Amino acid sequence: MGLTFEVSVTAPTSGRRAALHLPHGTVQTPVFMPVGTAAAVKTVQQETLEHIGADGAGAEIILANTYHLYLRPGHQTIRRLGGLHRFMSWPRPLLTDSGGFQVFSLAKLRKVTDDGVEFRSHLDGSKHFFSPERSIEVQIALGADIIMAFDECVETPATWQRTRDSMGLTHAWAARSRQYWLDHRHEAPWTGQGTGNREQGTATNPEPPSTPYSLLPDPCITPAPCLFGIVQGGMYADLRRESAERLVEMNFDGYAIGGLAVGEPREVTREMIARTLEVLPRDKPRYVMGVGYPDEIEEYASMGIDMMDCVLPTRAARHGLLFRAPQPGEELSMPRPGSSEDSPEAETASRTAVRMNIKRLEYAEDQRPIDPACSCLVCRRYTRAYLRHLFVAKEPLGLTLNSIHNLSFYLDTMSRVRAELAGLSHEDAPMAQR
Amino acid sequence: MGLTFEVSVTAPTSGRRAALHLPHGTVQTPVFMPVGTAAAVKTVQQETLEHIGADGAGAEIILANTYHLYLRPGHQTIRRLGGLHRFMSWPRPLLTDSGGFQVFSLAKLRKVTDDGVEFRSHLDGSKHFFSPERSIEVQIALGADIIMAFDECVETPATWQRTRDSMGLTHAWAARSRQYWLDHRHEAPWTGQGTGNREQGTATNPEPPSTPYSLLPDPCITPAPCLFGIVQGGMYADLRRESAERLVEMNFDGYAIGGLAVGEPREVTREMIARTLEVLPRDKPRYVMGVGYPDEIEEYASMGIDMMDCVLPTRAARHGLLFRAPQPGEELSMPRPGSSEDSPEAETASRTAVRMNIKRLEYAEDQRPIDPACSCLVCRRYTRAYLRHLFVAKEPLGLTLNSIHNLSFYLDTMSRVRAELAGLSHEDAPMAQR
Repeated sequence: MGLTFEVSVTAPTSGRRAALHLPHGTVQTPVFMPVGTAAAVKTVQQETLEHIGADGAGAEIILANTYHLYLRPGHQTIRRLGGLHRFMSWPRPLLTDSGGFQVFSLAKLRKVTDDGVEFRSHLDGSKHFFSPERSIEVQIALGADIIMAFDECVETPATWQRTRDSMGLTHAWAARSRQYWLDHRHEAPWTGQGTGNREQGTATNPEPPSTPYSLLPDPCITPAPCLFGIVQGGMYADLRRESAERLVEMNFDGYAIGGLAVGEPREVTREMIARTLEVLPRDKPRYVMGVGYPDEIEEYASMGIDMMDCVLPTRAARHGLLFRAPQPGEELSMPRPGSSEDSPEAETASRTAVRMNIKRLEYAEDQRPIDPACSCLVCRRYTRAYLRHLFVAKEPLGLTLNSIHNLSFYLDTMSRVRAELAGLSHEDAPMAQR
Repeated sequence: MGLTFEVSVTAPTSGRRAALHLPHGTVQTPVFMPVGTAAAVKTVQQETLEHIGADGAGAEIILANTYHLYLRPGHQTIRRLGGLHRFMSWPRPLLTDSGGFQVFSLAKLRKVTDDGVEFRSHLDGSKHFFSPERSIEVQIALGADIIMAFDECVETPATWQRTRDSMGLTHAWAARSRQYWLDHRHEAPWTGQGTGNREQGTATNPEPPSTPYSLLPDPCITPAPCLFGIVQGGMYADLRRESAERLVEMNFDGYAIGGLAVGEPREVTREMIARTLEVLPRDKPRYVMGVGYPDEIEEYASMGIDMMDCVLPTRAARHGLLFRAPQPGEELSMPRPGSSEDSPEAETASRTAVRMNIKRLEYAEDQRPIDPACSCLVCRRYTRAYLRHLFVAKEPLGLTLNSIHNLSFYLDTMSRVRAELAGLSHEDAPMAQR
């Protein structure tokens, strides 16, 4: 295996507190992973990410998008520069997605066959082809700690039959992704073979070590990227269970649940996650892709999800939307992002978080920090009045400060969840000082 | 006086090493002041500014623009929030310009009379009026440590007669600026009277202390903003000398040289500065506004200029232009910004600095830092290849990192100049570890 996963506590709710050991470090789970699409968490410096959050531990793992980096600057460039960790100067764990979601949401003129997807770049219209093998090849060149099987993301809504057919393709692609990974995973830039390439400044293809999976040495001794499968199945519980069963038979290092939070009601998301979790093994990490609001990530963690990622904290920040702990009486229901009841301008609240719209006039002379309970560098230093001014004046610094605060809020939320799962009270928890 | 100015060394070149004591701290001069137009140095956090540069001392003083802050968020808002230092969380010295330059360069439909300037906001077309009294009123409400007399900036080129008429208006406005400042300077938000207003959260106008200037207590005991006059006179040496003489008669706390670096050849700039310096008193700080390239700020410091500001390091950064120390053989002449021989895309060099265009393909796989001799946080961590990627991919983080490096380069340049003026060799100088 490319990782080791130690579950220390499983709560009666099925939520679990664990440590995920990866080639570039250990990640305390449940974890929220900030998204660094193009090898940068938008507007935030790496040295800030390393210390963000109340406990100062920073982000222990971040995500980057294979599709974006493949197009620009190109995976071979990043490989020649020593891989993504060195390229972006991020020595901690990284996860790359498969590119599938972006191919199906951003790229133009897609043509899907059993073999893969032909698409045109959203940047310049150039033609490209992603197969499972190509996606894994690109991801190994980037060299994240966790890489993802290439999957088809079905449009939503989709019929049961259409969803099942797409799921079948995803399973076939998962098997091909896994085979390519087995044959090539030690070609990552930071494994023995990859390092030699980097130091010569040229990319050569070393002979693949076609050793069977089960005979490979422990990856903690000979580290290599580990591979997660992605459960699909749309909004159909039977398909979700079937997809999970097929992937578990293939024995991945971890399992992601994809194709959720694409506009369906939150109850459906929860139901799909619950049905999938019943099938996934308890000794492997479980990852819901692309969620969510603070109360969502808290809820899914309590159900037994170990990893989540979302652009929401940073994207909301760039729209002037800031999360903070609710005061008594502020607990309203928070609509899910993108749903019909959710206006981007609205201030909303839930048990976990209030979403403030910093550009409102009421903050123009508000001398309080965003969140009086927050100890992030933004709340320690800057007022709502100043942040409103920066946003209204279109000063880029405002987007940076907003992003730092929102990411801190998300990391602090997970820190609190971890402490609660470990059976520590909020006050006792060394990892959750909020 | 609102400041004390201690010259410790004057070099044979007339350059001097001094300390400028202001209400919010001491500034080591010669100093380069980063520009924070709208109460933010674009893309750079205050906590970064506090530690920028090789010596870790950070920016000891920054500049903000009165015109921009008057329009948005409004000087009364900033006053109610405790003044600009508190508003932007910058406890160190601040300087505000008079708004004159922006009224004459940014605003629309100006109408100049002896009384002042009527103009329309570049933001929303709303009508406003700046007189010398109004400019000083606004600046006192903002509450910088150094405020500037309101001046007319003559168009360039201008005839001798037109320049002399404009200069006469500037002198009359300087006298009126000074009188209003004498009557109202203790109304700054951080003086005794101002503090009371801030704590009540409302702005009232306390009775002005119309004590004659000479009878006021030492501002180091009762601090208040200090006022600089601005020498004008276009590109005419006789007018520059006359302007300096008139302003010196009015006895300002310091003297700025305005209306330079507006497109004239660098030899003319140097000549105007030299002729003006012959008239300005040696015991007061001398400030050239709006310059310049690294070799310019070094040259003017060696001539006896104590203070300079310019948007160049941050603006160039946002265009992907990065300064670094030249290697042997890279010493070419660097055209002045905006001159006909200066292409914004060009890579140029001088004795002091090379200007790199980071978006060039040659940097795509360049693993070196911007400047191997630089110890800024960007050069310690990131490669040219990564910075090029961020710029090409339009990642806002690239603008931040570029700005941090360029500001570090400017501050390090001045640190080196200060060490040389103090008679320390480069290696001995504790303030200049580059």
